[in-house]
Amino acid sequence: VRVAILGTGLIGGSIALGLRGRRVIDEVVGYDRDPGARRAAAEALTRGVDRPEEAVAGADLVVLATPVDQMVSLCARLTGRVPDGAAVTDVGSAKVEAVAAGEGAFGPRFIGGHPMAGSERHGFGAADGRLFEGAPWILTPTPATSSESYSKVADLVARLGAKPVAVPPGVHDALVARLSHVPQLTASALVDVAAGAQERDALLGLAAGGFRDVTRIAASNPELWVAILQANRKAVLEALDGLRSRLGEIGEMIASDRWDELLGWLSSARRARIELFAKPDYGGDPVALNLMVPDRPGVLAEVTTAAGELGANLEDIEIFHSTEGGGGRLELVVAGADHAGRLAEALTRLGYVVEQGVID
Amino acid sequence: VRVAILGTGLIGGSIALGLRGRRVIDEVVGYDRDPGARRAAAEALTRGVDRPEEAVAGADLVVLATPVDQMVSLCARLTGRVPDGAAVTDVGSAKVEAVAAGEGAFGPRFIGGHPMAGSERHGFGAADGRLFEGAPWILTPTPATSSESYSKVADLVARLGAKPVAVPPGVHDALVARLSHVPQLTASALVDVAAGAQERDALLGLAAGGFRDVTRIAASNPELWVAILQANRKAVLEALDGLRSRLGEIGEMIASDRWDELLGWLSSARRARIELFAKPDYGGDPVALNLMVPDRPGVLAEVTTAAGELGANLEDIEIFHSTEGGGGRLELVVAGADHAGRLAEALTRLGYVVEQGVID
Repeated sequence: VRVAILGTGLIGGSIALGLRGRRVIDEVVGYDRDPGARRAAAEALTRGVDRPEEAVAGADLVVLATPVDQMVSLCARLTGRVPDGAAVTDVGSAKVEAVAAGEGAFGPRFIGGHPMAGSERHGFGAADGRLFEGAPWILTPTPATSSESYSKVADLVARLGAKPVAVPPGVHDALVARLSHVPQLTASALVDVAAGAQERDALLGLAAGGFRDVTRIAASNPELWVAILQANRKAVLEALDGLRSRLGEIGEMIASDRWDELLGWLSSARRARIELFAKPDYGGDPVALNLMVPDRPGVLAEVTTAAGELGANLEDIEIFHSTEGGGGRLELVVAGADHAGRLAEALTRLGYVVEQGVID
Repeated sequence: VRVAILGTGLIGGSIALGLRGRRVIDEVVGYDRDPGARRAAAEALTRGVDRPEEAVAGADLVVLATPVDQMVSLCARLTGRVPDGAAVTDVGSAKVEAVAAGEGAFGPRFIGGHPMAGSERHGFGAADGRLFEGAPWILTPTPATSSESYSKVADLVARLGAKPVAVPPGVHDALVARLSHVPQLTASALVDVAAGAQERDALLGLAAGGFRDVTRIAASNPELWVAILQANRKAVLEALDGLRSRLGEIGEMIASDRWDELLGWLSSARRARIELFAKPDYGGDPVALNLMVPDRPGVLAEVTTAAGELGANLEDIEIFHSTEGGGGRLELVVAGADHAGRLAEALTRLGYVVEQGVID
């Protein structure tokens, strides 16, 4: 297997380090438009190359790990250059535009991805082969995505120790706007409000642990963040409006002395905080689900998205095309009888005929 | 020396633990309106008592460490009960109202205080005798504060390993609104916006480290927070308005594609974050400043506030009243020649005649 990694910074470098020495991967070829970054990553690569076209030639799996603002031009440049049997994925923090660019260039071979792990540092110097261990890795299949590409990329993700979770690109973008992009802007705004105080000198050194935590991410790289916010402009604006109106409502509660209402609101936010960080349960014995599927686009996206929404982890997915035409059989392996049962129900509601069986 | 601590939860309990076994303190008497909390704190106290009046009888130093919403009624209850020579302080997170209540009940004996250390936990179970080590402890002298009370409380603070920093009550409230109270509300609002997403199930477990940091304080005790917000209502509303308009400006930059402006803003917030957490320099050899002071109210507050605004740490402060009447001499000990020099300049600008000398 030959994996091509384009962009050998924090994420691309961590993927390369995570794959190094794994039995299944034969070759990891790396490219970075910054020759210094490419040299820095040399220890993690089988081979570093000077041009993206060279990296993807003969590749089975292409990972686009450039900053999001270079993704569109890179896709355009590589159109027609990626082998027919290869899968292509990316790791960008916004998916609607990236998936449109990727599918435009690579068709069903492309599947968007986003590892939910990172660091406020960047560059290969911050890369770590264990960065993704135990982290969710979002995949965003669409009706156009081929099942081979999905399987290849989900395999890569699993080999890096991460858990693939499938959601549609638009849902992803709304989620990360709320979980990452707007919190980032808010941390910077809180610093700005504090630092803008007239009593600035008195304030130096007085900030305690809570403020330190809340504003830690405000020290992140501004250039990378502008590119991310640009790529997820629409969802960010929606989430920002949501936050502003929430803060307005809180101000109203305080201004009009509605303290019981404020108490109720703070209490429910406290409960939500605790629930949000409840670990999803990926454990349990593997259970196989078999379903006959019609030969139409979108089946794979429907099935994987249903699994993602239930928090069910698809450990394996395979399509057997019927020799008699007109459809095929999809075999899924789900961790845990509970998740398998709930996924079978959800798929039945979507109109599929599902058979369930334990794997030996 | 007899210290009375009213309220033996996280802060009162940590003070008691920090004083236990110190040579200078003879007795630590504790009261809590919850008998269970009082019993839990027994190990840290010389003696637990059943009524606040009993705790303050014969005390040299009284620490009011109840939740802020009980402060006003406790002051009213103790009016006329605290010995003439005693100093009274509190530890509440908002100071304008608390100082008004304290001075109303105890006159010049009262000086407001606020240790800038804490925990999202509460109660004596979370108390720690080293909680305050190295932390700033704000004191809020006013024109009414007596220098003896200031010295007694500053001594207590120093014995607990904290650094006394003097600022006026109103400045304190504006600072903590920005550094603590509005960040607290914002963390809850970010959780609420995230948890309110339609895709709630898909979101479970997807939140990464940044979101975890930003929203950690949203797990704090809602009852305590409502009391704090109530006590600092005005400053909180101002800071909240500031944050909302900042977020509105950011939304405008994004909506109208002013990316360079956004980059500049993120970059300056990043620099401010780094500066805000630059440790204030409290080091250096002690330097004495002597100044002749007129016998008028407000001198102490003026001097200590000037020191606080410069980030200069007053290690000692003493007033020698002139036997000839009409004034006296104030002796300050400041850590570091640099801070001493800047403080001498500031006091000279305020009209004082200052003499500087190194302490042997």
